[in-house]
Amino acid sequence: MPMKSYKFLLIVGDGMGDRPIPELNFKTPLEYAVTPNLDSLAKRGITGIMDVIKPGIPPGSAPAHLALLSYDPYASYTGRGAFEALGLNIKLERGDVAFRCNFATVDEELKIMDRRAGRSIPEADVLASSLNKISIDVDPPVKIIFKHSVEHRGVLILRGSNLSPKISDIDPGREGEKILWAKPLIDDYSAYRTAKILNEFVRRAHEILEDHPANKARSNKGLPPANFILCRGAGTLPQLKSFTEKFGLKGICIAGITLIKGVARTIGFEAPLIEGATGGLDTDVYAKAKAALKYMESYDFIFIHVKGTDTASHDGLIESKVKMIEKIDGMVGRILDFKNVNNLCIAVTADHATPISIRDHTGDPVPLLIHAPGILSDDVCMFSEKACMKGGLGRIRGLNLIPILLNYAGVMHKFGE
Amino acid sequence: MPMKSYKFLLIVGDGMGDRPIPELNFKTPLEYAVTPNLDSLAKRGITGIMDVIKPGIPPGSAPAHLALLSYDPYASYTGRGAFEALGLNIKLERGDVAFRCNFATVDEELKIMDRRAGRSIPEADVLASSLNKISIDVDPPVKIIFKHSVEHRGVLILRGSNLSPKISDIDPGREGEKILWAKPLIDDYSAYRTAKILNEFVRRAHEILEDHPANKARSNKGLPPANFILCRGAGTLPQLKSFTEKFGLKGICIAGITLIKGVARTIGFEAPLIEGATGGLDTDVYAKAKAALKYMESYDFIFIHVKGTDTASHDGLIESKVKMIEKIDGMVGRILDFKNVNNLCIAVTADHATPISIRDHTGDPVPLLIHAPGILSDDVCMFSEKACMKGGLGRIRGLNLIPILLNYAGVMHKFGE
Repeated sequence: MPMKSYKFLLIVGDGMGDRPIPELNFKTPLEYAVTPNLDSLAKRGITGIMDVIKPGIPPGSAPAHLALLSYDPYASYTGRGAFEALGLNIKLERGDVAFRCNFATVDEELKIMDRRAGRSIPEADVLASSLNKISIDVDPPVKIIFKHSVEHRGVLILRGSNLSPKISDIDPGREGEKILWAKPLIDDYSAYRTAKILNEFVRRAHEILEDHPANKARSNKGLPPANFILCRGAGTLPQLKSFTEKFGLKGICIAGITLIKGVARTIGFEAPLIEGATGGLDTDVYAKAKAALKYMESYDFIFIHVKGTDTASHDGLIESKVKMIEKIDGMVGRILDFKNVNNLCIAVTADHATPISIRDHTGDPVPLLIHAPGILSDDVCMFSEKACMKGGLGRIRGLNLIPILLNYAGVMHKFGE
Repeated sequence: MPMKSYKFLLIVGDGMGDRPIPELNFKTPLEYAVTPNLDSLAKRGITGIMDVIKPGIPPGSAPAHLALLSYDPYASYTGRGAFEALGLNIKLERGDVAFRCNFATVDEELKIMDRRAGRSIPEADVLASSLNKISIDVDPPVKIIFKHSVEHRGVLILRGSNLSPKISDIDPGREGEKILWAKPLIDDYSAYRTAKILNEFVRRAHEILEDHPANKARSNKGLPPANFILCRGAGTLPQLKSFTEKFGLKGICIAGITLIKGVARTIGFEAPLIEGATGGLDTDVYAKAKAALKYMESYDFIFIHVKGTDTASHDGLIESKVKMIEKIDGMVGRILDFKNVNNLCIAVTADHATPISIRDHTGDPVPLLIHAPGILSDDVCMFSEKACMKGGLGRIRGLNLIPILLNYAGVMHKFGE
């Protein structure tokens, strides 16, 4: 089998799937957008629809990507905190419990005034370093690691023995409500201990942040003080067989956002910083195309993630979503301008639908197209939710995608003789 | 339910599925071949595509047929050796470990010169009987049973207690390489013991074969001596509920090759010798049709296997594959000339694709057609990989086939009340 000569390209438009939109004459953004490159691939390749997790289940982005990359989401998704930490290049150790955190603003009664403390917090790194000095006196001992990422976001790691991710969130998820104290979710010593430690951290962090000169300065400028750390999504490092071990392929992830990089790193992908890949609507898709072409020389499997389609959907921005889809199409076109498809296996899909009418993830199946050398094509000539319903792939699951794609290059092992 | 009056006919073209072939104007052999009988059945019946094992997984023929016959391949496939032995009508006992074997030619350094010792070995039965005299002194004792089948092929059975199939192959699978010594694949006493016994058998067999007058005569005639037994595919007898126990139907297998007969016998099918069914490109499909018609009188479920499509694919013979498909079509036509479809449930499919461009099994879904009395047909009028993509059965799994087929005759038990 001429396996080594094949390259693989997986392109995921986050939340790209949608439903009919009245403002687009009841077309979906994918139907409305001008996408000559995706349509051409659909015409020459094969299409279908895909339940990334299971029919009707709205996927979170982390388990969705685990499934798309061939990892059973129910077995491999161990809480979002761990993936965020990995995305920030924090080396997680076995037994660490990680949390997604927000700098937030609370009043004297610990009621949440602003879940993001104004979102722009230039003082965040200074504040974060003050939190790393917190030491909690418990036996066995625990180490506190707090790292700021961007804007109001950060990650907290508790490191030590007898820790458990089975505790509830501090963050109630809504403003105007009081913060919650962490509680064990199971009747287990480690869970009790972890909840106690987290509550103590949050209390001490509040004391430190409340008195911090940087926050006093913010208040003086009329800005909301970043005086509280809202924690949620406790998670541990999943122990997964790497993608290379599973398939003998070296993978790289081209993404702007931390969470997706974290997921990719968990399965042994490289996830370098791509200049211009912002994870926002302003992301430079040509920089991503350029990176894909560059890394194709030394990696086998290139996974490109584009976040903008999801961001536009959550914010209800119809035109922005259409434009982001056209940018993805342009990115695909740029790659194919420079890379011959004769030894390239391509899949284009979404990790879930985020219909603009809903502004949140839904469990609708997502459209999928595959193009590979020698592929038996179907009659579908357009890449959209509706056109792909008639595709030759029928309706598959997220977990089926990688085996189907890799099968075209002879990478899958025969089962039995 | 008038179950008794229905007959079932399953026709499997081994490796019949394919991909577009430039020499056939980018049609597949199924699309290119003239198949009026299959097309007529497709038109009157219902079609679909099927992942025999799982999407994207290339199936071996033995586990594929287990799945097609409703046995979970992951639970029932216990190594190819056992199925080969059953195909040779060797009564396997519980605890026996069976191996597929080749007579081969090796040099003084045990490097493989010819994996098949010239393929034609008229002396094979004489050589085999000398091997059955080998006695290996171990405690508990082990019995050696070696049986020649056709050409260079044979089966070795180790019979005794504390034996394990969890050992590696002697056969490296390639010429020019040295033979391998069997190693235990798990840290287990029985596996160590079995590897040691197999290595001792192979060593002693080599001594005997090397000095055997039949081999001296071969060498004198310039033929490669059959001086080594390459063993592979250690397997044990799978403990499966018979097809009759599961469905109350008496089954018979009409096949030319050992392996498929072995699979069928494992689940309680009869697998008689069919005169003219060679398992090759020259197989007499009318003899198979005649046998099917004869056995339909006393059996409920007739399973016809045709190997030629796979052989042609592995050898890259486009025209031969097209012709084999047309022969299968003729066989179906002959059966329907004599058998009224009013009480016949028919399925035609493949156990896997063997695209001529790849010359090996792939994980592509296979086309499937079902015709049964009273069936709701779809709009598909042709039996091919692409036409069946639009079929009313959608995309199913190999394990679903028998329940779907039997459902038309009211054989399936109601689940709950």
